[in-house]
Amino acid sequence: MKVTLISYTKECEKLIAVAAKQTITQKEFSESWNEMKEDEKKEWLKETMSRGHTSPWEHCTYTFLIEDVSRVLTHQLVRHRLASYSQLSQRYKRIKEIENYYVIPKSILKKGDKALEKYINSIKKSFEEYQELINMGMPPEDARYVLPQAVKTKIVVTMNARELLNFFGLRMCMKAQWEIRALAWNIYYIVKSIHPDLWKFVGPRCLQLENMARMKPIELEELLKNDNINLIIEKCPEGVARENIKLCVRTALNDIREFLESANPNNGENKI
Amino acid sequence: MKVTLISYTKECEKLIAVAAKQTITQKEFSESWNEMKEDEKKEWLKETMSRGHTSPWEHCTYTFLIEDVSRVLTHQLVRHRLASYSQLSQRYKRIKEIENYYVIPKSILKKGDKALEKYINSIKKSFEEYQELINMGMPPEDARYVLPQAVKTKIVVTMNARELLNFFGLRMCMKAQWEIRALAWNIYYIVKSIHPDLWKFVGPRCLQLENMARMKPIELEELLKNDNINLIIEKCPEGVARENIKLCVRTALNDIREFLESANPNNGENKI
Amino acid sequence: MKVTLISYTKECEKLIAVAAKQTITQKEFSESWNEMKEDEKKEWLKETMSRGHTSPWEHCTYTFLIEDVSRVLTHQLVRHRLASYSQLSQRYKRIKEIENYYVIPKSILKKGDKALEKYINSIKKSFEEYQELINMGMPPEDARYVLPQAVKTKIVVTMNARELLNFFGLRMCMKAQWEIRALAWNIYYIVKSIHPDLWKFVGPRCLQLENMARMKPIELEELLKNDNINLIIEKCPEGVARENIKLCVRTALNDIREFLESANPNNGENKI
Amino acid sequence: MKVTLISYTKECEKLIAVAAKQTITQKEFSESWNEMKEDEKKEWLKETMSRGHTSPWEHCTYTFLIEDVSRVLTHQLVRHRLASYSQLSQRYKRIKEIENYYVIPKSILKKGDKALEKYINSIKKSFEEYQELINMGMPPEDARYVLPQAVKTKIVVTMNARELLNFFGLRMCMKAQWEIRALAWNIYYIVKSIHPDLWKFVGPRCLQLENMARMKPIELEELLKNDNINLIIEKCPEGVARENIKLCVRTALNDIREFLESANPNNGENKI
Repeated sequence: MKVTLISYTKECEKLIAVAAKQTITQKEFSESWNEMKEDEKKEWLKETMSRGHTSPWEHCTYTFLIEDVSRVLTHQLVRHRLASYSQLSQRYKRIKEIENYYVIPKSILKKGDKALEKYINSIKKSFEEYQELINMGMPPEDARYVLPQAVKTKIVVTMNARELLNFFGLRMCMKAQWEIRALAWNIYYIVKSIHPDLWKFVGPRCLQLENMARMKPIELEELLKNDNINLIIEKCPEGVARENIKLCVRTALNDIREFLESANPNNGENKI
Repeated sequence: MKVTLISYTKECEKLIAVAAKQTITQKEFSESWNEMKEDEKKEWLKETMSRGHTSPWEHCTYTFLIEDVSRVLTHQLVRHRLASYSQLSQRYKRIKEIENYYVIPKSILKKGDKALEKYINSIKKSFEEYQELINMGMPPEDARYVLPQAVKTKIVVTMNARELLNFFGLRMCMKAQWEIRALAWNIYYIVKSIHPDLWKFVGPRCLQLENMARMKPIELEELLKNDNINLIIEKCPEGVARENIKLCVRTALNDIREFLESANPNNGENKI
Repeated sequence: MKVTLISYTKECEKLIAVAAKQTITQKEFSESWNEMKEDEKKEWLKETMSRGHTSPWEHCTYTFLIEDVSRVLTHQLVRHRLASYSQLSQRYKRIKEIENYYVIPKSILKKGDKALEKYINSIKKSFEEYQELINMGMPPEDARYVLPQAVKTKIVVTMNARELLNFFGLRMCMKAQWEIRALAWNIYYIVKSIHPDLWKFVGPRCLQLENMARMKPIELEELLKNDNINLIIEKCPEGVARENIKLCVRTALNDIREFLESANPNNGENKI
Repeated sequence: MKVTLISYTKECEKLIAVAAKQTITQKEFSESWNEMKEDEKKEWLKETMSRGHTSPWEHCTYTFLIEDVSRVLTHQLVRHRLASYSQLSQRYKRIKEIENYYVIPKSILKKGDKALEKYINSIKKSFEEYQELINMGMPPEDARYVLPQAVKTKIVVTMNARELLNFFGLRMCMKAQWEIRALAWNIYYIVKSIHPDLWKFVGPRCLQLENMARMKPIELEELLKNDNINLIIEKCPEGVARENIKLCVRTALNDIREFLESANPNNGENKI
């Protein structure tokens, strides 16, 4: 899995804060912009989040290039309808080479060499048959029906911060399928590294629910590391009881930790 | 304000329950349909709501004719983007008559006859000027710039049950502007009367948040009438503290009670 | 492929026509409803379509159960974002049996027995490996990475008439992948059979473009059968030149004719 | 009317072109990015537009601050549902001063001093009554029911390039209401000045339809200035016949020319 931030809204945090503020003041936008201090900005970000008034978050967009993921992942990803996608087509493009071009679930690795061998052989065999069918005259778009879902794809995705909030809620959760969960945490750490104040209190749905329900919001880092945090909610949306939520969130991260890339705050700048 | 349900998905509750169920069973849809008992249906509706897995709710749509409301209301209403609207245009249609064709806020009535007289005179005066400008040759679409926002309009709206859930959360709330709040409660009582199991646990955002956060969900009626209910959440999204939430919801309703129509479960049948 | 209409808006054509009309008249909705004759209704449907003012079409929704299709199809289908989906999960549900549970492209059949045998064997082999991996202790949600894309799935889809219009434009077209093209024509014939006046002038994008660009719209049936039709557009959106468009549309249909079900106008009634 | 571009996707044209290209090549994104020459970029922009495959255009977003417009305009604007809005509220914010805080339609100016005086007096009178009602104890959110629709508002809007394409099609058209038409042309000239290759062939729906229907697309500037252009379409979507379309587009612009600001390509940079 490889996630690259290729474009994003500069000064996104301030844009959100000032856009929110100008809905209740006749003051000039530029005046609000110039006057807005760090503390006031943070307050607007926290307030819009904990009140669920996140429409100003939509003014801020991120574009990612996502590579080396399976179609199992993308079939789930594109179900997020408030986002924009440009995906590699399997119709027009014949796949030339299977080496390193399939995803291996961690559970296969854990089962030892025999399982892994069987897994890889199965994929290679299917790929050979794909090639043979093409050689027999099938169009690639039909031959691909025998290709396994593990085969890699790539996709360019644009989401605004409000939809990302929703995406994180659902997909950073332990209940999410591991591959898309790994993607969600990767994206989270990337956007957090460039807009730390915006994403501080955000995480899986349990945290988002908790932060709507309590006076003083909790940071994701606290939930991950501080054992003394007491939650208010009786259960998370998925039904996990209060006392198990901390462990659940930590497992959701630990379980996919080997799929985490090192977040690079300058990705957006470097790539484009 | 007049709200008429002119079309809706028949057997909507069962459709939602079976659509949800068939995502996890290879059993035939028709088999699930025929086997589904009332209790199982209710369980699916409650579960999808309290887990926030409300995507199957989208299969169910309602179409309303909303009349005798102001453009103050519709300007807010059409901000709900996951819905469909057909609104009376002020461009092509010259308004002929102002009598009974403007909305009167309750706060004006409460201030006594003098305020009401001033209010009505102001609207009538503006309407006269609208007419005079048209008589001087202005097109109606430009003359209407002098018309007050109180002038009535009508609009046909289609929303699916998932968007209605969101609409109720935001607009049944005490923080919502009174006219759109009255609309929300009217619509709520209409859909509740035809699909009681679907809407039982639904209400303003405080209730929706509470029901995500607690093991056993609360009905709106309980929140409105049972003083012994204890809430789990520390605050509602809007920041109202736990101990004030019950009163807040009851006020949200009582404040617009005179704008409530009597919900008619057969509206959908009778009208079309 | 099996497509069943399980729910739809009754009197949808009249609803669209009256909703459109009431945007320009202060007349009572019920009065417009009662007065609207067949001819006037048809005129509103034709006008809204040929002017591209199709927002009233959104008030009309259709819900389909789509079975016996591949995940190649559904991965494309769910890219249509203005629609609602409930799809069978491969995560929680172990596939028990592969017999008749995969899609066979026509191009495989045409290549003769050897190609077909290879195709079927490839899929069966992958399925065996899926089973073995599960027997070795893999969770089904990971073992499925070796499953081919031909494996069947089912999905419940709700679309409104305006989004269907867009769907037909893109997916009835010869450039669309054959499986989703077959789905599009199947759906087209189903909705046409219940709402003939609404869908008469609708088809792939070439026809929709032509009907926006000409004074008197053409019916799809004319394009399919009448050789004397002269088109105005120089090319279709996809770049097919005027003189080849008729043949292109006919091929788009003939190419998937064996995947056409017989449309049953009473599906909606019978099923639910 | 004052339109300021406060944020936009840098290198948006190249991003669209490379995102489109990578759907059909396994080549590295960065490689495509580095290799892409100006001519190839222009070709991708033209092709995606004239084929109507504009999904990659969604990766590119623009954020505008729109000031000194009426609520007549914003009520129409927010009907564009694939966009993000943050608007000044009239609920919480009492309007202090009416001087220069209302919109004057051109048709009023044209009718001479008497009409203008009547128009202005009507608005000032309504404003006085608004103040008096507040002084009598009305909340501002209710007193505003007497405020005319001409009263100014401001709004922050984010749209992606694909939705802008749709917005231009509908709102640059002569049939659009003059105030929102002026907004559309203002926005058009702003985005054209920073991304000239993206917007060159774009304009009202007649031009967009024509460019889908013809082999070689026409630039908006040609339609506005070149009398020798021959159109293919028999009518525009709105029903204007071929021979009148050129005049219609020119009138759509000339009619609101005095509301055009001078487009400033550096707005985005200067403001934020």
